[in-house]
Amino acid sequence: MSKLKNKKFKASIIGASGYTGSELARILVNHPELEIVNITSESHQGKRFSELHGQFSGIVDLELVRAADVEVSDLDVLFLALPHGVSMDFVKKWEKSGIKIIDLSGDFRLASPEVYEEWYKKKHTYPEGFRNAVYGLPELHEDSIRKASLVANPGCYPTASILSLAPLFNALDVDPAGAIIDAKSGLTGAGVKASNVTHFSNVNDNFKAYGIGNHRHTVEIQEQLSFLLKKSVNLQFTPHLLPVDRGILATAYMGVEGDMSQQKLDSLYQDFYQEKPFVRLRNQAPSIKEVRGSNYADVYPFWDDRTKRAIVITAIDNLVKGAAGQAVHNMNLMLGLEESAGLDQVPMQP
Amino acid sequence: MSKLKNKKFKASIIGASGYTGSELARILVNHPELEIVNITSESHQGKRFSELHGQFSGIVDLELVRAADVEVSDLDVLFLALPHGVSMDFVKKWEKSGIKIIDLSGDFRLASPEVYEEWYKKKHTYPEGFRNAVYGLPELHEDSIRKASLVANPGCYPTASILSLAPLFNALDVDPAGAIIDAKSGLTGAGVKASNVTHFSNVNDNFKAYGIGNHRHTVEIQEQLSFLLKKSVNLQFTPHLLPVDRGILATAYMGVEGDMSQQKLDSLYQDFYQEKPFVRLRNQAPSIKEVRGSNYADVYPFWDDRTKRAIVITAIDNLVKGAAGQAVHNMNLMLGLEESAGLDQVPMQP
Amino acid sequence: MSKLKNKKFKASIIGASGYTGSELARILVNHPELEIVNITSESHQGKRFSELHGQFSGIVDLELVRAADVEVSDLDVLFLALPHGVSMDFVKKWEKSGIKIIDLSGDFRLASPEVYEEWYKKKHTYPEGFRNAVYGLPELHEDSIRKASLVANPGCYPTASILSLAPLFNALDVDPAGAIIDAKSGLTGAGVKASNVTHFSNVNDNFKAYGIGNHRHTVEIQEQLSFLLKKSVNLQFTPHLLPVDRGILATAYMGVEGDMSQQKLDSLYQDFYQEKPFVRLRNQAPSIKEVRGSNYADVYPFWDDRTKRAIVITAIDNLVKGAAGQAVHNMNLMLGLEESAGLDQVPMQP
Amino acid sequence: MSKLKNKKFKASIIGASGYTGSELARILVNHPELEIVNITSESHQGKRFSELHGQFSGIVDLELVRAADVEVSDLDVLFLALPHGVSMDFVKKWEKSGIKIIDLSGDFRLASPEVYEEWYKKKHTYPEGFRNAVYGLPELHEDSIRKASLVANPGCYPTASILSLAPLFNALDVDPAGAIIDAKSGLTGAGVKASNVTHFSNVNDNFKAYGIGNHRHTVEIQEQLSFLLKKSVNLQFTPHLLPVDRGILATAYMGVEGDMSQQKLDSLYQDFYQEKPFVRLRNQAPSIKEVRGSNYADVYPFWDDRTKRAIVITAIDNLVKGAAGQAVHNMNLMLGLEESAGLDQVPMQP
Repeated sequence: MSKLKNKKFKASIIGASGYTGSELARILVNHPELEIVNITSESHQGKRFSELHGQFSGIVDLELVRAADVEVSDLDVLFLALPHGVSMDFVKKWEKSGIKIIDLSGDFRLASPEVYEEWYKKKHTYPEGFRNAVYGLPELHEDSIRKASLVANPGCYPTASILSLAPLFNALDVDPAGAIIDAKSGLTGAGVKASNVTHFSNVNDNFKAYGIGNHRHTVEIQEQLSFLLKKSVNLQFTPHLLPVDRGILATAYMGVEGDMSQQKLDSLYQDFYQEKPFVRLRNQAPSIKEVRGSNYADVYPFWDDRTKRAIVITAIDNLVKGAAGQAVHNMNLMLGLEESAGLDQVPMQP
Repeated sequence: MSKLKNKKFKASIIGASGYTGSELARILVNHPELEIVNITSESHQGKRFSELHGQFSGIVDLELVRAADVEVSDLDVLFLALPHGVSMDFVKKWEKSGIKIIDLSGDFRLASPEVYEEWYKKKHTYPEGFRNAVYGLPELHEDSIRKASLVANPGCYPTASILSLAPLFNALDVDPAGAIIDAKSGLTGAGVKASNVTHFSNVNDNFKAYGIGNHRHTVEIQEQLSFLLKKSVNLQFTPHLLPVDRGILATAYMGVEGDMSQQKLDSLYQDFYQEKPFVRLRNQAPSIKEVRGSNYADVYPFWDDRTKRAIVITAIDNLVKGAAGQAVHNMNLMLGLEESAGLDQVPMQP
Repeated sequence: MSKLKNKKFKASIIGASGYTGSELARILVNHPELEIVNITSESHQGKRFSELHGQFSGIVDLELVRAADVEVSDLDVLFLALPHGVSMDFVKKWEKSGIKIIDLSGDFRLASPEVYEEWYKKKHTYPEGFRNAVYGLPELHEDSIRKASLVANPGCYPTASILSLAPLFNALDVDPAGAIIDAKSGLTGAGVKASNVTHFSNVNDNFKAYGIGNHRHTVEIQEQLSFLLKKSVNLQFTPHLLPVDRGILATAYMGVEGDMSQQKLDSLYQDFYQEKPFVRLRNQAPSIKEVRGSNYADVYPFWDDRTKRAIVITAIDNLVKGAAGQAVHNMNLMLGLEESAGLDQVPMQP
Repeated sequence: MSKLKNKKFKASIIGASGYTGSELARILVNHPELEIVNITSESHQGKRFSELHGQFSGIVDLELVRAADVEVSDLDVLFLALPHGVSMDFVKKWEKSGIKIIDLSGDFRLASPEVYEEWYKKKHTYPEGFRNAVYGLPELHEDSIRKASLVANPGCYPTASILSLAPLFNALDVDPAGAIIDAKSGLTGAGVKASNVTHFSNVNDNFKAYGIGNHRHTVEIQEQLSFLLKKSVNLQFTPHLLPVDRGILATAYMGVEGDMSQQKLDSLYQDFYQEKPFVRLRNQAPSIKEVRGSNYADVYPFWDDRTKRAIVITAIDNLVKGAAGQAVHNMNLMLGLEESAGLDQVPMQP
């Protein structure tokens, strides 16, 4: 795909009110090869984007339009920043137009509509979409993403969890039943909607687990690790809610039989992640603020010789590498742009 | 032990500047059967306790004295709220006097001076102390505590971790190698000392793991669970640092072979913790604020039939059930008082 | 009023779901002279109180009843923990029964229904209630409160603001137009209801002003200071929202003409607040955590000779001294109990 | 000043360990016209910058050098990110070399060494520096900054405070004694050093005032407003410590006599700040997260007709507009670059 010099690609963000919508705007507004043509909102149509998100005052003052008013023939790429269950209808509507679509919802991440319906407890209205949808984790599926017209952007927990264990599942004949992922997420993962869950005083100075044994992201992680292991995977995933805005930290435990050492573990990870610009292998446990606001995934593999387990800790910003940043990464691949174009945000610490 | 009516037991708090010292004062000042006679500090001697801890203005204005000036013959009980490595010298000095001593440091929690020296990397100066020291977790050792004159008050992480798994290790022939405890603690666990670790901007809106594979509390947990299992235990323990003041949440994973169900798991826990006033068995995952400021340990056992694992989540306030409150509980037992005297703090939420 | 020995007074809390309701329960459950007989909720009727507020598991498991099912003839005192506009109907319903009522809403705090309607933009349905209602700030109106059957419990901001300036308005002929109160409150002041305002990510790591120039508490402060000054008061009050759960800090500025000094200012405050058990005059600026969870108001008067202004800083816990604790203080006075009965909570810091 | 195409200006950051040092790196690493040649640290010399600040792993891995090893003849600009009292010696050492210097400390912000010594309680070792130093608030002194070789970058509180009141002091004959600035800052304003002040549990869920009546920034604000008013100014400034990392919110109160209205106030501010790219006039009170991570100052002027006061609220990120971002803005002006080059960071909310 090529553009005349100085001609920018044109994008639309479908869904303005959530955090993925505003985070996409934060990244795309400084993307060197792209222009945001419109942003949609059904409930806030007519307002300016900056009225919804005050931080964009004077930066993105676009008037919000309805999705029905988006003319896809004028566009190169669509970002669907919508809840699951809603997104599928828009994919259905627009997929045939040939426009590149990046769907940030969970609607096309899984292997089939049947698995979707089992874990999301919801009828899928566009099963055909699964045929072309590519799972948009560039560290695993770069080639398919480059050719895709529909990318299902990974979930935030799965991004951190899969990156933690992929090198082990790829290289070794591990026992998948031994894998435990104890994950902790900032509150933005719960979305922008006001509820008991998101009430400040239920979160501040507090901490708890949720979705124990049955969180939807479990199956997404299992499917991708199965793909690497070439064997069915049934693992343990437990999410927790951190009193922070952004960030996921996954602590993954994996028993490894046979001959292993810190050095071998390091090599395995280095080999797997070389040439992957957004994975930073660290030699000490990363904190979530060390990646905050950026597209980096900081991965720290630790070998515990006493218990014969690998403990792998991965930190990402759930809104960037876990959502909007990864979506832009996928877009760069789909449009044949520089892989890291527009993704040079330095992590904001403190 | 008995006292004349209206005559209160007399206590001294050795070590005023840390969080366990101030938390002991918070609890003891309202204890119906006890009076704080003095509080010591080597570095702040001469100041008032309320100058160090402004919240006590008008409540505890005692002038701080040096430990050397404490006359134990006037006292019934001593609380040592000192760092490990310092506490042992005071135990050595005062143990023979016959006074009841509750040591909140790690100096006498382990099985032997040898184990101590291996994990604390420090020479123990009073190995004789181990002979009489009783591990002060009342849910496991109530009878020994009642007779003890030296109680080693458990560590905060071990309290939450052991309470999570004790019923399983007590009743079943579990494989201890399968146990993983992924624990998360508020910052007060790191102590009152100013450092990079405790700097606000390194903690706020942040999260990380530390002590991976080698935290000292690992061996303390292993010893107590070995005692229940009657078999050596070698388990995984990973602590993390939460951006909150107080609270520990332990998420413990334990594979269980054979016939198990949610109902059986519940029965096991109910049997083990009946008559234990400070363990509250919950039917949903507790948050740390639901126990904040109180001596409760909220324990939630969950059976995951898909993975054949028990996942047990325990929430405590690290400064109360994990330190000062448990110390007062131990004192009540040692002095023959009502088990829960002075420990009626309702958790402070929000 | 007197009770037979061992016979406790009986109270009902009308309105269980909000923070004032749960905070009343936290205090009253340990009150030596009182028993909570029932707690009401229209929307959660039939649930246990501890299902709504998990921290009360095993402590207050009362089943919630509807207000219509409360039999006031069995009770000594009613706490109305209801929103303004709702409370007035219950006062109307129960006032004639002769039961002691403490209304924690804003419905009867102001001088007249007319002032209420101007600032609350709402028709008052029980103007007669103003005749007997006493403004329940014990530091100003102790004698009236002792005799009252209906007490209007002060607002949280007014409590901190009035205590900051009362000694000046009482003793000096100050120019009230010069008074500026810049106040900052924790999020619980915004209530338990989920909304954009209370969404964690709009509050965490954030700070803003609101209600600039027109917050309802302005007139409440003005009325009480007018009462002391015996002159109409028109002052400036600006509230701000802190990313904390509890606590109000008021920074009050008051130009003082003529002869003033730090020493004179201190005397003025000492004289005014002597014999007031819950006001602690401090000699340095208090932080909100130094009063958290307690009924104390920490007041620090500072004289700035360079600008000829008194700057008075007051810290309270908005849910205790600013709501439930003050309500219990009022109840103690109304029932002839020890003024500080049940209010011995030590501030929880950290 | 001009550079050959593709040739970048060369900068050194003197002082790596503090927040202004790391924030300068965060901004400069993406500046289109500039290259960071070296970063210095006396105490961490030999380490990589990314070892000190993990967020820069793989981004800025420069080895830290000692200031003595910096060769200024190879450089175009020096940023001094040093504590006050230290910076002056480096200005003395390097000023004569003709290199552009931007000093982020307080050493050359005030009118004279005498005023410095009075408020900073410290002997000034380079009084000559005051002759050429220009106060680097571009909204007031753009022309002088363009010609300057030594710029004293403003304090964080003064930046927010002066921007709040400058249009009033510039246009009206206000009574300066009536000005009160009640300011609130995030903890990073207290610096990177570990101390009681910066200990997490003294800040988290807490709030307090400090430096009441005597904070050093008072005189800096007074001097700049005197410059506009052409009259000596003696105003009130009270700082407070917020439990957040970044951000200052200044609430400024200014009585205005004569004919004023919201509309007139707005015009005054619009006139003063037109053509100022980093001041955003808002029509509602800004929160600090709406500017976080960016160089914007959001200013909201409100007219309270009831009290005849202007209340002006300004939000900045203390580390960007209050330090490193403003320093880069000054550099752009000094080097003749586009005013906003490298300063396109979108505020990070949430």
